[in-house]
Amino acid sequence: MKNYKITVAYDGTKYNGWQKQGNTQNTIQEKFESILGKMTGQKIEVHGSGRTDKGVHAKGQVVSFKLKSDFEDEEILEYINRYLPEDISALDICEMDERFHARLSAKRKTYVYRIWNSPIHNAFEHRFLYTVEDELDIERMQKTAENFLGEHDFLGFSSVKKTKKSTVRTIYRAKVERCGNEIKFIVTANGFLYNMVRIMAGTVLEAGLSKRESDSVFEVFETKDRNLAGATLPGKGLSLLSVEYRD
Amino acid sequence: MKNYKITVAYDGTKYNGWQKQGNTQNTIQEKFESILGKMTGQKIEVHGSGRTDKGVHAKGQVVSFKLKSDFEDEEILEYINRYLPEDISALDICEMDERFHARLSAKRKTYVYRIWNSPIHNAFEHRFLYTVEDELDIERMQKTAENFLGEHDFLGFSSVKKTKKSTVRTIYRAKVERCGNEIKFIVTANGFLYNMVRIMAGTVLEAGLSKRESDSVFEVFETKDRNLAGATLPGKGLSLLSVEYRD
Repeated sequence: MKNYKITVAYDGTKYNGWQKQGNTQNTIQEKFESILGKMTGQKIEVHGSGRTDKGVHAKGQVVSFKLKSDFEDEEILEYINRYLPEDISALDICEMDERFHARLSAKRKTYVYRIWNSPIHNAFEHRFLYTVEDELDIERMQKTAENFLGEHDFLGFSSVKKTKKSTVRTIYRAKVERCGNEIKFIVTANGFLYNMVRIMAGTVLEAGLSKRESDSVFEVFETKDRNLAGATLPGKGLSLLSVEYRD
Repeated sequence: MKNYKITVAYDGTKYNGWQKQGNTQNTIQEKFESILGKMTGQKIEVHGSGRTDKGVHAKGQVVSFKLKSDFEDEEILEYINRYLPEDISALDICEMDERFHARLSAKRKTYVYRIWNSPIHNAFEHRFLYTVEDELDIERMQKTAENFLGEHDFLGFSSVKKTKKSTVRTIYRAKVERCGNEIKFIVTANGFLYNMVRIMAGTVLEAGLSKRESDSVFEVFETKDRNLAGATLPGKGLSLLSVEYRD
């Protein structure tokens, strides 16, 4: 039994997210399990580093699975790419220690939320962008992003209902960059709660629109009140950039 | 009556090309005429610098139209962009001399044909790329492209049937560039015949696959025989980059 790690990129526009759950059809996980099943004749379970929601993209999703086969690593990668649709690709493959697990071994993940700030569409990348036409105060957005840094209870910045699991996460990086008409909110953490990046991005955006103060972030940390945080921005602007593992 | 020039970008994937002709629905020209008609209450005729076929893209298509209105230039641009779908955008607007015509005044056009040379898809840009997995001889492709330079009869490099109009065109630039897994064939000419860039690109590609000599280009010029030229590559890899005008 070999344990593999592959890096995966996808345009999530057409998919119902990474994870198959219940009757959800057309997930990216499903595509991988179906291709690996066809290749090996076995039922292969594939683990992603985390769920990405409907319409969310990935440049560096990490996927792991165990396989009993005589295929060379490169043959597996070739086989997968031959059968993947055009909007999903397997970028590399690596044989790992048997304990490696894409989700459980992950230490840090980085997401980017991309905002297009112009009344003139970006005809080529609109699938990956959320458009906001109003003028944005970038400094205020940057200040708001910085307020996320460190260890906090992010319950108020999530769609999680009451839970016994910890909702404390550590943010290692949170910044806002403008490049031409595009504004990126980039955030690295040891983990993210359900809808957490999209709500953080919504909060940063509302600060940019001068609808809230940058310090309102602390109020949400204190009260854990979802209603005090920003709106959940649409999935289309969000991409999972990379996942880091120990060593 | 004012005469306007606008620069237009589009992802042509979903459209039946630029030009409405006969019963063809869902063309880009149609979108502009319908928006300008709604804006002014008049029937406005819009001219493109050239037809782009079904599935072909543009970064710098040029469009002209005459309009009787009290709108400021910027108001017209804003109005158009408000009603255009996400995969089409109007980049700028300029008031021109009454004699200006997007097609008749054009002096040079530049197209790029983009080939993706890897078995690993480009999940984010596959709409704009034609994929070729086999190894390509770039030098041979470059040599083939250079053979197009100058003034020649391109009848053999087109889907044009017998015609009384001249099929002589002048190529000012024709080059092949590799950047990572992407290979671009860029060509500038004083005009292009029907399917000409796609057939030139097909000929360059076949040279890269060592299916033909770079000098086979001259044979097509001499015989004007379409069958001796390369295949017509799919529209999806083609983009109209820019149009130049005298001034």
